[in-house]
Amino acid sequence: MMADKIFRVNMTDLSVSIEDVPADWLGLGGRGLTSTIIAAEVPPTCHPLGKYNKLVFAPGLLSGTRAADSGRLSAGAKSPLTGTIKESNSGGTASQLLARMGIKALIIEGMPEKDIFYRLKVNTEGVSISEETALVGRGNFAVVDSLPDDVGVLSIGQAGENRMSAANISVMDPDGKLRSLGRGGLGAVMGSKKIKYIVIDPAGSPKTMPLVDEEKFKAAAKVFAKALHDHPVSGEALPEYGTNILINIVNEIGGLPTRNSRYGQFDGHDKISGEKMRELIDARGGKPRHGCHPGCVIQCSQVFVDKDGKYVTSGFEYESIWAMGAGCCIDDLDILAEADHLMDDMGIDTIETAVAIGVAMEAGVIDFGDGVGFLGLLREIQQATPQGRILGSGAAVVGKVYGQTRVPVVKGQAIPAYDPRSVKGIGITYCTSTMGADHTAGYTVATNILKCGGFVDPLQKEGQVELSRNLQIATAAVDSTGLCVFVAFAVLDNPDALPAVVEMINARFGSSLTVDDVTALGKSILKTERAFNQAAGFTVQDDRLPEFFEEPVSPHDAVWDFTGEEIDAFWDF
Amino acid sequence: MMADKIFRVNMTDLSVSIEDVPADWLGLGGRGLTSTIIAAEVPPTCHPLGKYNKLVFAPGLLSGTRAADSGRLSAGAKSPLTGTIKESNSGGTASQLLARMGIKALIIEGMPEKDIFYRLKVNTEGVSISEETALVGRGNFAVVDSLPDDVGVLSIGQAGENRMSAANISVMDPDGKLRSLGRGGLGAVMGSKKIKYIVIDPAGSPKTMPLVDEEKFKAAAKVFAKALHDHPVSGEALPEYGTNILINIVNEIGGLPTRNSRYGQFDGHDKISGEKMRELIDARGGKPRHGCHPGCVIQCSQVFVDKDGKYVTSGFEYESIWAMGAGCCIDDLDILAEADHLMDDMGIDTIETAVAIGVAMEAGVIDFGDGVGFLGLLREIQQATPQGRILGSGAAVVGKVYGQTRVPVVKGQAIPAYDPRSVKGIGITYCTSTMGADHTAGYTVATNILKCGGFVDPLQKEGQVELSRNLQIATAAVDSTGLCVFVAFAVLDNPDALPAVVEMINARFGSSLTVDDVTALGKSILKTERAFNQAAGFTVQDDRLPEFFEEPVSPHDAVWDFTGEEIDAFWDF
Repeated sequence: MMADKIFRVNMTDLSVSIEDVPADWLGLGGRGLTSTIIAAEVPPTCHPLGKYNKLVFAPGLLSGTRAADSGRLSAGAKSPLTGTIKESNSGGTASQLLARMGIKALIIEGMPEKDIFYRLKVNTEGVSISEETALVGRGNFAVVDSLPDDVGVLSIGQAGENRMSAANISVMDPDGKLRSLGRGGLGAVMGSKKIKYIVIDPAGSPKTMPLVDEEKFKAAAKVFAKALHDHPVSGEALPEYGTNILINIVNEIGGLPTRNSRYGQFDGHDKISGEKMRELIDARGGKPRHGCHPGCVIQCSQVFVDKDGKYVTSGFEYESIWAMGAGCCIDDLDILAEADHLMDDMGIDTIETAVAIGVAMEAGVIDFGDGVGFLGLLREIQQATPQGRILGSGAAVVGKVYGQTRVPVVKGQAIPAYDPRSVKGIGITYCTSTMGADHTAGYTVATNILKCGGFVDPLQKEGQVELSRNLQIATAAVDSTGLCVFVAFAVLDNPDALPAVVEMINARFGSSLTVDDVTALGKSILKTERAFNQAAGFTVQDDRLPEFFEEPVSPHDAVWDFTGEEIDAFWDF
Repeated sequence: MMADKIFRVNMTDLSVSIEDVPADWLGLGGRGLTSTIIAAEVPPTCHPLGKYNKLVFAPGLLSGTRAADSGRLSAGAKSPLTGTIKESNSGGTASQLLARMGIKALIIEGMPEKDIFYRLKVNTEGVSISEETALVGRGNFAVVDSLPDDVGVLSIGQAGENRMSAANISVMDPDGKLRSLGRGGLGAVMGSKKIKYIVIDPAGSPKTMPLVDEEKFKAAAKVFAKALHDHPVSGEALPEYGTNILINIVNEIGGLPTRNSRYGQFDGHDKISGEKMRELIDARGGKPRHGCHPGCVIQCSQVFVDKDGKYVTSGFEYESIWAMGAGCCIDDLDILAEADHLMDDMGIDTIETAVAIGVAMEAGVIDFGDGVGFLGLLREIQQATPQGRILGSGAAVVGKVYGQTRVPVVKGQAIPAYDPRSVKGIGITYCTSTMGADHTAGYTVATNILKCGGFVDPLQKEGQVELSRNLQIATAAVDSTGLCVFVAFAVLDNPDALPAVVEMINARFGSSLTVDDVTALGKSILKTERAFNQAAGFTVQDDRLPEFFEEPVSPHDAVWDFTGEEIDAFWDF
């Protein structure tokens, strides 16, 4: 089979090159590859929106194969939100297409002198760069609606064009709708490079990946898919209710950050729960199950429709619903769905933006619970008014601009949907993740709440550092395969799952990796990322939660009580 | 004589205590004392606007005596602008009054639960705390106009009330007008502690300080005053034209940051120069010479009036005029004077704010040169509109909110009136100062441009690190005496000046310090401040200029070309 290549686009002189993959990078994919490239080629202290930053897209090692749930795409850069290295991953069709086209990574570097936007068209031969005017100033839906369904699309909306720190990059999904490379402001990096969208045209590439050992692959893939299917979380709960099944669960254990992290439970939880959402979808004729990429067997997504059965949004996730719902005390799913759509269209991280608005509510910009006001603020972001620019810059900037102290961020990134005081393992992940506060970096909730891979009491300190460490190492490896983070439940509980993953990789590449090698890869990725951050000026003082988490949170009166030394022990590996 | 005391106000429970001065602090004053107290009592990682930060005011060691130019007041806190330790100093009458009242330092800690403002009244007996309503929401002039002229006043305007990171603290001057504890957002700290203003009532205190050796003091004071008078800068140039004499000088050598640091010379320099200002003041019947505190022999200030001879502003400094004039390309002194008045009234740092507006101009918010637009933006800050809050948060936040890369800041503080590419010594000071970019921390311009204390070619790298180091050490000591930074010219050129300062300190306290002890004090202060910053998470990567200073600046095509290693050698002492 043809060797994979690196496609490199220089936006300063609009040149393109196709390069062999360096030997060191051959065994890498996804996050492992984006982080390695960023660490190798981007000066850690550079301005994230300047000419020295680079934007790298890389499919996972298993992307493009028939491995279940292997279609995640990684994007990497130095983050304008956090100043750290950043990997963000997403579903959509782009990852599988890039992989089948033999594109190991697409690197975008430099930036144009002129203030005009471009579109890139990637095919197996190379990349063409054209000036774009028609779609500039328009949302992501206008972009995907203008393109055929069989190409891959990476696009930015108005938030990315305006280089807002919370801007994301949208990825077209199998239905021609949107998924997001959500966190860390990578849309602003794409905007700084003046790229409105990238079309990935797979013409001439094989439908499935060539594999070194087809039979071995098929057998392992079957074991793996079965493990996903057999697990109650990935086989039942997620397909049935989507990620939003978590609203009631996390509310019940008192870990649902409510009213800008003031409380741990939300009175209106029933009105925004996964159960309620399913009820509405069924009654209105929406689609309760949906995959973000072909080959997903979990199907945790859904299509949410309005009272008239009209499409409103898809990929309506727990994190978004929590952030707007409990975080901002808005208990109306229809408003949240409209807001979700608006944020997808303008291309902005729902977590960061809703937490930012929660901080603005704390400052009195609008009242908690004001759903109409929330939608109005989103339109200000879309229009890039001064108010909108503040909010689009993320929660930390909102806190600074309004002189607030209750600002739930780590390394400038908004804390997601689990209060670290009452789910202490995830607090360790927020502190120590190389990405800023990020639940997916080491999803201890699986063990703290869902009791996968055993149980570590979320209210006690014991065992949390080790739990977060093990999960962050595993996740860094999983994020390199193109597999969805939700395979973790099966991996934690089913001893057949991880060996099957390793077997699939070996069958694809003809390698002879072991499970230990995968762990070593995870460790190595984390260390590469941390070294970048340290060279950028980050210290252990950045691995801390904000001061206000010393306040007790209801219902357990839990406080954040880890010492710096205890947190820093995370890195003892 | 009565031993000096520490007055401590706790804003959480509205309690006051009067404490003996710890033995270690007896030899300290001004910056030496504020930085020592902050380092000892404030957790370096605390939120600057939270209950753990403290605001400390301290007169200098010579304040209250008849030593020429000794009436500077230091204020210290953890800065909400930079996150570093911060000392800001100012003229006005407060320093001398506090010193005569035997108040070594006023420490304000804690913060009220309730959202109401207070006023403090300090007298020799203690501090009374009362609720303030009438003046809340009003500017600093309303505050000083409501109070008698014989008290000292420390006040915040709307910017401080709104906890904006660029807010300053105003100090009433001998004419009932305003001076500013300008940099680093200390007004936001005062606002976070809900103090609108502090009245210092000297009733019952001696008119001059009791001195251990009156005769020795008198003799040394005479030598010192003569040294200031004999030096061409402090004896001629500054009294004649004020600090604004520098516009033409710095423009001439090509170091005047113009159009948001894009060029080194400003076409409109003649229209905003010190010479032009003096001409206008003379023609309109303003006051060309003015001291910011009683006992100043330099009198670099002035009272600027409008065409009808009506008061517009005083303390109309080079830095402010440069920042608005060359920085934003506004060449109309009358507009700049009105803007200066507005900023004094709302209580915001002129450097930070004008640089912030320059970055906003770069982003297209208004055009460069638009003086009326500039005034309009200032009113938005005063009214705390979203646009105003962005600008009032300082240049770094403006850069982030508008996705700009040309953002002249170090450690989040705006770079002052000398381009570091063409005045390289000051670039070292900007990088290494514990305060963020601050020209007064080590004013190499004295030697680089004014040729005081020798000459170090501003365009060459040689000698700049040593120059900045020596000046920063000396300045840290001078900032502890209550002496104005402009005594430095005489100290650099006249061998009698520094021994006379040491002699005055000895005569006041009965100590037997040497010049070497003063240098040791300066070193110790810098190290204390740096240790605080390091514990707060700052590293050598924060001691760097922004990336864009690699671009050549006209007229010399100078670039910033120090390596990190060269910069870091600053700390080898």
